[in-house]
Amino acid sequence: MTDWTDSTEAARLWFESLRDRICAAFEGIEREAGSDAAFEYISWEREEAGNPDPGGGTRGVMKGGVFEKVGVNVSTVRGSFAPEFAATIHGAGAENPGFTATGISLVAHMANPHVPAVHMNCRFLTTSKAWFGGGADLNPPLPDEADTADFHAAFRAACMKHNPTWYERFSKWAEEYFFIPHRGVARGAGGIFYDHMECEDTAAFERNFAFTRDVGEAFLEVFPELVRRRMGQEWTPEDKRRQLEWRGRYAEFNLVYDRGTLFGLKTGGNIDAILMSLPPEAVWD
Amino acid sequence: MTDWTDSTEAARLWFESLRDRICAAFEGIEREAGSDAAFEYISWEREEAGNPDPGGGTRGVMKGGVFEKVGVNVSTVRGSFAPEFAATIHGAGAENPGFTATGISLVAHMANPHVPAVHMNCRFLTTSKAWFGGGADLNPPLPDEADTADFHAAFRAACMKHNPTWYERFSKWAEEYFFIPHRGVARGAGGIFYDHMECEDTAAFERNFAFTRDVGEAFLEVFPELVRRRMGQEWTPEDKRRQLEWRGRYAEFNLVYDRGTLFGLKTGGNIDAILMSLPPEAVWD
Repeated sequence: MTDWTDSTEAARLWFESLRDRICAAFEGIEREAGSDAAFEYISWEREEAGNPDPGGGTRGVMKGGVFEKVGVNVSTVRGSFAPEFAATIHGAGAENPGFTATGISLVAHMANPHVPAVHMNCRFLTTSKAWFGGGADLNPPLPDEADTADFHAAFRAACMKHNPTWYERFSKWAEEYFFIPHRGVARGAGGIFYDHMECEDTAAFERNFAFTRDVGEAFLEVFPELVRRRMGQEWTPEDKRRQLEWRGRYAEFNLVYDRGTLFGLKTGGNIDAILMSLPPEAVWD
Repeated sequence: MTDWTDSTEAARLWFESLRDRICAAFEGIEREAGSDAAFEYISWEREEAGNPDPGGGTRGVMKGGVFEKVGVNVSTVRGSFAPEFAATIHGAGAENPGFTATGISLVAHMANPHVPAVHMNCRFLTTSKAWFGGGADLNPPLPDEADTADFHAAFRAACMKHNPTWYERFSKWAEEYFFIPHRGVARGAGGIFYDHMECEDTAAFERNFAFTRDVGEAFLEVFPELVRRRMGQEWTPEDKRRQLEWRGRYAEFNLVYDRGTLFGLKTGGNIDAILMSLPPEAVWD
């Protein structure tokens, strides 16, 4: 069996460097808008009985003038899944509950309802299998066709560099995943979602890692552009109300369906880090 | 096997009469506070493939000056559980998925943070078994010992009329049930919770129905009293903020753990009725 220690470390380092560049870009936008808001970072250590090195992570949060609340988490954890949960995870089970996971997760809730909220996450997991997963989706309270098209185009380009079928497949996967079944509506304007991108060996790891890096870079290129495009746009109290209602749906999705939230809650993750995705304010009619 | 048709009808009629009296009492409080707010009622019909009489319900909502948002639902539904869900329900299973359920469900989110929010629910279900369940819990953003004690005393008295062990048992059950595991905190100040109160025959039905009626009457007696006691109290922006944060926890509980929410989502209930329990406004730090 392949030893994934070095690969996990390489992925971790890249996720952390992506975090640094994203946070710098977001703080730069705050400067342009005349705010001195900055990310605050809180590290947390995971606990698992009998596990001397269970890992942990760092939660970064900024509350600014443009970014009403943005959380960027990185975490690298390892240990054993609880038996029942292990049965639900690719390549794991009661007999082989061991896992490692490293990843970055980001959710931005914006002050101006014309600026779309966004979610991005990339991760590398190992059980008896090893795989990448990730994706990003745009969540505009007041959807704009050009914004949505540009967001999709950035991820289409990232996919096309690697496999001509991936954009179609991963954007469809996002449509299915970022959907609120009990309301029968999409949670946002879509994007891409992929999971279980298998690394059979280190060569496959390198290929898939290169793709995941391109996904991260695509996000870093396109989202700040969309923010700058809309952050100065005037909005009405009705626009704000629509944003707050829309955030209620977002909270429903994350608390009822989101796999990352469930994964965190089931593996002893940090509650504040897991729930940083929840909106700063939401309303229900 | 006992035919529970008449019993279900008797329970339904009583739940609906309790709804009428509670709504009148709450509207009376609005009048005292100088508001002309009133409940609006929306009926909904359930749909189940191949079921000509799947039932439905009525959602009542009032947005007033004292009651920022209060929802009171009654519903009476019958049909077949989906196989996977049937396996989780007392007396049901893949072989006998049939059920009926009638009940009342109430959640009040109050404008003044000194007035506790509250939840109350009573229900009668039949599968191959028949049983009552119910309960009420107080959710004060700014807990007051006397309010909490009076709320508990009302339900203690209702329990004591029927069985000297029930208050201890049902208040402990509420402590366990109204708990947010991922945060390790109680969702509120407790109350009572009971379920699977078996009706082996119609005599048991009459006894258990009498208890459930006393639970409903206890609620109708004590909660308006607590509202009147606190509704005029001054509050600060910090008090309001605490209320909104506390409502975030309430939304987490209802979306992640609440059995009634799950039951509704899994049995094709009305989404607006199921989610009326969500707060009008909530914040997450």
